[in-house]
Amino acid sequence: MSEMSPEDWLLLCRTVRFGETDAAGVMHFQQLLKWCHEAYEESLERFGIPASTIFPILGSMPAISLPIIHCSADFRRPLTCGDHLTIKLNPKRLNPSNFELLYRFSIYYVEAVSAITRHTAIECKSRSRCTLPKEINRWLEASSLQQGIQEA
Amino acid sequence: MSEMSPEDWLLLCRTVRFGETDAAGVMHFQQLLKWCHEAYEESLERFGIPASTIFPILGSMPAISLPIIHCSADFRRPLTCGDHLTIKLNPKRLNPSNFELLYRFSIYYVEAVSAITRHTAIECKSRSRCTLPKEINRWLEASSLQQGIQEA
Amino acid sequence: MSEMSPEDWLLLCRTVRFGETDAAGVMHFQQLLKWCHEAYEESLERFGIPASTIFPILGSMPAISLPIIHCSADFRRPLTCGDHLTIKLNPKRLNPSNFELLYRFSIYYVEAVSAITRHTAIECKSRSRCTLPKEINRWLEASSLQQGIQEA
Amino acid sequence: MSEMSPEDWLLLCRTVRFGETDAAGVMHFQQLLKWCHEAYEESLERFGIPASTIFPILGSMPAISLPIIHCSADFRRPLTCGDHLTIKLNPKRLNPSNFELLYRFSIYYVEAVSAITRHTAIECKSRSRCTLPKEINRWLEASSLQQGIQEA
Repeated sequence: MSEMSPEDWLLLCRTVRFGETDAAGVMHFQQLLKWCHEAYEESLERFGIPASTIFPILGSMPAISLPIIHCSADFRRPLTCGDHLTIKLNPKRLNPSNFELLYRFSIYYVEAVSAITRHTAIECKSRSRCTLPKEINRWLEASSLQQGIQEA
Repeated sequence: MSEMSPEDWLLLCRTVRFGETDAAGVMHFQQLLKWCHEAYEESLERFGIPASTIFPILGSMPAISLPIIHCSADFRRPLTCGDHLTIKLNPKRLNPSNFELLYRFSIYYVEAVSAITRHTAIECKSRSRCTLPKEINRWLEASSLQQGIQEA
Repeated sequence: MSEMSPEDWLLLCRTVRFGETDAAGVMHFQQLLKWCHEAYEESLERFGIPASTIFPILGSMPAISLPIIHCSADFRRPLTCGDHLTIKLNPKRLNPSNFELLYRFSIYYVEAVSAITRHTAIECKSRSRCTLPKEINRWLEASSLQQGIQEA
Repeated sequence: MSEMSPEDWLLLCRTVRFGETDAAGVMHFQQLLKWCHEAYEESLERFGIPASTIFPILGSMPAISLPIIHCSADFRRPLTCGDHLTIKLNPKRLNPSNFELLYRFSIYYVEAVSAITRHTAIECKSRSRCTLPKEINRWLEASSLQQGIQEA
């Protein structure tokens, strides 16, 4: 089997849709945070981690949940219906229980918005903090290797 | 204790917000269905049925869920940011397992949109159809009495 | 230039994301209508009609808008986070001012949800009904040819 | 005419609805940002500034728009369907073109989430930065007086 290219799971695409704009004619800011979470899910999926490993689905709850404890976004340029965006993800482990994702949204290589989500691992039964699931650690490690190369 | 007036749980209000409009300057159609479900929840709450009786919440799942099996909406006039709407609900039992809710959204007594949601009772464990929860039946009966009076 | 295959613009894909589910563990019904509009936009785009021709964007309003005057959906099976859906579109002109889109959402060839949106052409300046834009007519005609072949 | 109490426009309420939760049984983080913007709109409305003064609506665009250039949120406790929240707003002018809103969401006096949105004034025609609209300045000043009293 050939190796995956890291761009497969850290570089994604998305098109702005009409229902995501508001009466000012631009993407409504809140949609950006939705895109972040969906990019995170798509990244895991492309890396080979099925949604059901990480996210609860009908009749099956993973042992560990990964709620967002902080998010932020900086909007530099307006995005409009039909814009084709590239999303560059930069996941980083902060400590054994926490990781952070940096997202850069660009149009034609110009960054329009950046955002951050910070996640913490919670053991579902006890509702207490725990270490990150091993699949997330694998994804964080593979992603950090890639970033080392990029920045070298 | 004084009687509740039926308008307390069958006549609601809502204001169109900016994030619910799209770049055409009007409410994006999909928001209407969100408003329907929120009006249904508010109606139950005002009638005296707490959300946790009907809807699953963290760490507690009711025995019966009431998924929507059909919805529809007819849009007669555009709604814009800041519009104050009245929502008139008309809940109706269809058979022991199913009920339907008709919603009429008006601005200054002029109907702008109407919608329907149809719900079926599913026993959560077996995922098979069952009879409606008794709280829902109480709400349906109290609501139907009211409508008999209105239409007489 | 080689011909486009009609499946290019009438057969789309989508994955259910976590934020689209609710506390019952399944896709929240209202998201389905969002998916419909996004599938309609993607279909036009794949057919070769840029978003800015049909949808208003910051600083530019098309002459004709195509608001939804009716929508409906029938839910047969629950959809859960990570489900990969195929969406089959069936657009149909109803009369010179109106068209309808039928959407079929399936998982592994089993239909889970179907939906309809009905659109009317409104001249933006006068807010009065008008004939459909020529690009929409081209898309409707090319789509109807395809359906004739499929059903023959 | 009697004076408005500042709590009228800086202390709001909201109930978590089912469609705002995700399959983990809690409010999905992105909804929080929607609530922020809706609280901001409701605050202006209660203060006496109609939506059409500030927000574009069909066929009428204000001279100045107030896009969000930054937002952030910190989540301390999960919120579940049916939770009744109080929202305390703290608006603050940063400079002649910018203001910031701090939002504190509490359940029974315990803070669950806080958030910030930062807005900048843009003259719509030229798309260049300008001074805040006078209505926003009035609201910011009245709000800051109140906060002085509270903190004294």
